[in-house]
Amino acid sequence: MNTPDNGVRPSDGSVVALVPAAGRGVRLGGSIPKAFVTVGGTPMVRLAVEGLIASGAVDRIIVMVSTELVDSAVALLPPSDSVHVVVGGAERIDSVRAGIAAAPDAAYFLVHDAARALTPPALIARVAAELRTGHRAVIPGLPVTDTIKSVDAAGAVTGTPHRAQLRAIQTPQGFAADLLRSAYAAEGIPATDDAGLVEKLGIEVRTIPGDPLAFKITTPLDLLLANAVLDGASVGRAVTP
Amino acid sequence: MNTPDNGVRPSDGSVVALVPAAGRGVRLGGSIPKAFVTVGGTPMVRLAVEGLIASGAVDRIIVMVSTELVDSAVALLPPSDSVHVVVGGAERIDSVRAGIAAAPDAAYFLVHDAARALTPPALIARVAAELRTGHRAVIPGLPVTDTIKSVDAAGAVTGTPHRAQLRAIQTPQGFAADLLRSAYAAEGIPATDDAGLVEKLGIEVRTIPGDPLAFKITTPLDLLLANAVLDGASVGRAVTP
Repeated sequence: MNTPDNGVRPSDGSVVALVPAAGRGVRLGGSIPKAFVTVGGTPMVRLAVEGLIASGAVDRIIVMVSTELVDSAVALLPPSDSVHVVVGGAERIDSVRAGIAAAPDAAYFLVHDAARALTPPALIARVAAELRTGHRAVIPGLPVTDTIKSVDAAGAVTGTPHRAQLRAIQTPQGFAADLLRSAYAAEGIPATDDAGLVEKLGIEVRTIPGDPLAFKITTPLDLLLANAVLDGASVGRAVTP
Repeated sequence: MNTPDNGVRPSDGSVVALVPAAGRGVRLGGSIPKAFVTVGGTPMVRLAVEGLIASGAVDRIIVMVSTELVDSAVALLPPSDSVHVVVGGAERIDSVRAGIAAAPDAAYFLVHDAARALTPPALIARVAAELRTGHRAVIPGLPVTDTIKSVDAAGAVTGTPHRAQLRAIQTPQGFAADLLRSAYAAEGIPATDDAGLVEKLGIEVRTIPGDPLAFKITTPLDLLLANAVLDGASVGRAVTP
């Protein structure tokens, strides 16, 4: 295998995080990409990258942004040899493919939502550790708080899946690199759920316990919570009547 | 039909809200019932009752608490002829049954989680309005943010229900009174999902759009968000990079 000539450090078992950040914000308002929305004054994509670095479990981080935002992204991300910015695509799937292509030496990929900006480094490390023990697809998930129902197009309930068996899936989602490459090699695949692609290959996907702080910041209410967390309010305090 | 001799005002089409508040808090810590945990200094059950009153759509509110907390509940709830406290049971199902029994004149029931303390009055009014148009079971729900997967006991993924068809269900859940009475007349039924009971009767359950503020306050992180909302932070503000 040739050494890639792109500044990338090949190494046995290297863990490469892919952070798609080219998506446009819709629910958060404005026309800026949602990954560049700030929480506590810091763009979410930077917070996400800082979390990946702090995990100590990631060898390289590749952030995929749209062409016109490459310079901005480089300027706002932590200056580090392990952080790379590449041009993503119009759709999330194109961005992930661009990230995969930029890391031919990866042994493991962690695909991580920039919008899960407060994901605890310890959760990231746990996903990577599970991969290293031999699980080829590892995703964090939490029990669901609300009853989940399926509905038809008219809004009539069609079913109530057993809640105890459901998990709300978070990121980073970890994969053996060859597995993610295979999953993304297909054409015409849906773009939002990496683990779903792997499931279609017939590979077992393992869930591990997620973390409430890995919530996705997509609405103004999410943003309010994220800012409250960063304001240093005590999340774990005892509650009194 | 005899007029109940319990201070209840019978009326055509009366809407009675049932608020089970006997459950013990677990995730919020402490030994007090979770409905008595405070948000912004006010017990959640009071906030929930205030929301029901503010909706203008509810004729009577029945709060079910454990025996030893009846006096406390009466003291902390808004003084109103339309608010009643009754003794609930060890399980949620027992509390709802006690509430149903206390309202023989109800034409419609709204079953509401005290833990959804910030539910906008407008959402409560919409549920009641849908009932009055003839729908016999009406529940609010929001699209899910996270990918939802089903897992087996070992945590391996067994399936990924199509996300666009899923709704995270909130409260209040509204029912024609006879329908809820029938649903709760059965023995050995599960206790957490009123609409699920109605589905088992073969009755169509209609979902209407929920509201992010109707989130359930069950974890310290939820409590942080609820306090931030009540602190008056601007939830709808534009976001800048």
